[in-house]
Amino acid sequence: MELLKERILRDGAVRPGNILKVDSFLNHQMDIDLLNEIGKEFHRLFGQEDITRILTIEASGIGIACIAAQYFHVPVVFAKKSQSTNLDGSLYTTKVTSYTHERTYDVIVSKKYLQPDDRILIIDDFLANGCAVEGLLDLIGQSGASCAGVGIVIEKGFQKGGKELRERGINLQSLAIIDSMTDDSLTFR
Amino acid sequence: MELLKERILRDGAVRPGNILKVDSFLNHQMDIDLLNEIGKEFHRLFGQEDITRILTIEASGIGIACIAAQYFHVPVVFAKKSQSTNLDGSLYTTKVTSYTHERTYDVIVSKKYLQPDDRILIIDDFLANGCAVEGLLDLIGQSGASCAGVGIVIEKGFQKGGKELRERGINLQSLAIIDSMTDDSLTFR
Repeated sequence: MELLKERILRDGAVRPGNILKVDSFLNHQMDIDLLNEIGKEFHRLFGQEDITRILTIEASGIGIACIAAQYFHVPVVFAKKSQSTNLDGSLYTTKVTSYTHERTYDVIVSKKYLQPDDRILIIDDFLANGCAVEGLLDLIGQSGASCAGVGIVIEKGFQKGGKELRERGINLQSLAIIDSMTDDSLTFR
Repeated sequence: MELLKERILRDGAVRPGNILKVDSFLNHQMDIDLLNEIGKEFHRLFGQEDITRILTIEASGIGIACIAAQYFHVPVVFAKKSQSTNLDGSLYTTKVTSYTHERTYDVIVSKKYLQPDDRILIIDDFLANGCAVEGLLDLIGQSGASCAGVGIVIEKGFQKGGKELRERGINLQSLAIIDSMTDDSLTFR
C-alpha cells in the first residue's frame, strides 16, 4: 500500500533493537484519514471472505479494527490482556509473550463473542515474531470458529512471524513488509 | 441519547459491586453502527468547540474515540498504561487508580502529541469515580493545552466523578447517566 509506505518513510523512525516508531500516525497518535485508507484496503483484500467478526488485541489494534469494520459491517471483538487470575469458565484464554515489553500476558476473550460458525478476520498493527497472532489463532481454534484471514498494517519481514503463518496456509496480508532497516534506510519487500 | 439507553436496557447486565456489563456492544465486542451514532452525538455536542485533538485512554476508549474522530477530522491520541519505570523526559506522566481492577497505573502520553495551543476533547466509555478523566486532565494541564470538553458514553451518576467535574466547570457531556441500578432495574437521569 503505497500511501502507507510513503508515510512510514516520512514519519517513521528506527530505534535500536529493530524498533520502528510509528507513534505519530499509527499506535499512539492515530491519523484517522490514513486508518480509513487502511480499512478500505483490508476490505479490498478480504471483502470476499464472508467475514462475520473482526478480532484484534488491545490496545493498538483496536482503532484500526474499528475503522476497518465499517467497511465489513461486522462487530469488532478485542482480546484483553488480563492481570487477573480468577478467570472463570466463560472465557477462552491463551498466553502471549511480548518481546517489546519483555513479559508474558494472559489474553482472554469471552466465549460469547467467538462462535463455531464465525469466520474471523484478525487485524493488528504489527507482525514480528507472530506471538500476538498465534495467541489470537489459539483463541479462535478453541472456539471452533475459522480464521478467514489475517490483516497486518506493518510486517517486519526479517522476523519469523509472517513466514511461519504463510507456511501454515494462513491467508496473511500485510500492507507494508519491511525486509531490512537500519538507522538511515528502510527497505520494503 | 435514546438509542444508547435502549441498548443498555436491552443488552446490559448488572453485576454485584455496581458493575454494569455492556461488553456485548461497547467494551469487549463493539457494535460499530452504534459507535457511529455515538460519534455523531459527540460531534453534535462538541462540534462548535474547535477541537484539535481527541484524547482517550487505553483500551476501551480507543474504538469510540477513533469512530468519533471521523466527524471532527482530528487525530486521536491514546494515553498508555505503562508498566515501565524507565520513563524519559519525552513523556507526560500521571497516575490513575482503577477501582474495577484494584490497582494504580502509570499513564503516559508523548509530549509531541499534546501542544500548548491544542483544544482537547477527552472521550471515554465510562465515568464513575472520575479517576481516568482526572488523570487525562492532569496530562493536558502539564502540556499547557486546554480541555474543551469531556464526552462520556455511560456515567454512573451515583458515583462522584461527574458531580466533581461539573462543579469545576468542566464541559462534561454524558450520553447516558445512570442514577441507580439494582439487579432488575436501572434508572436513567
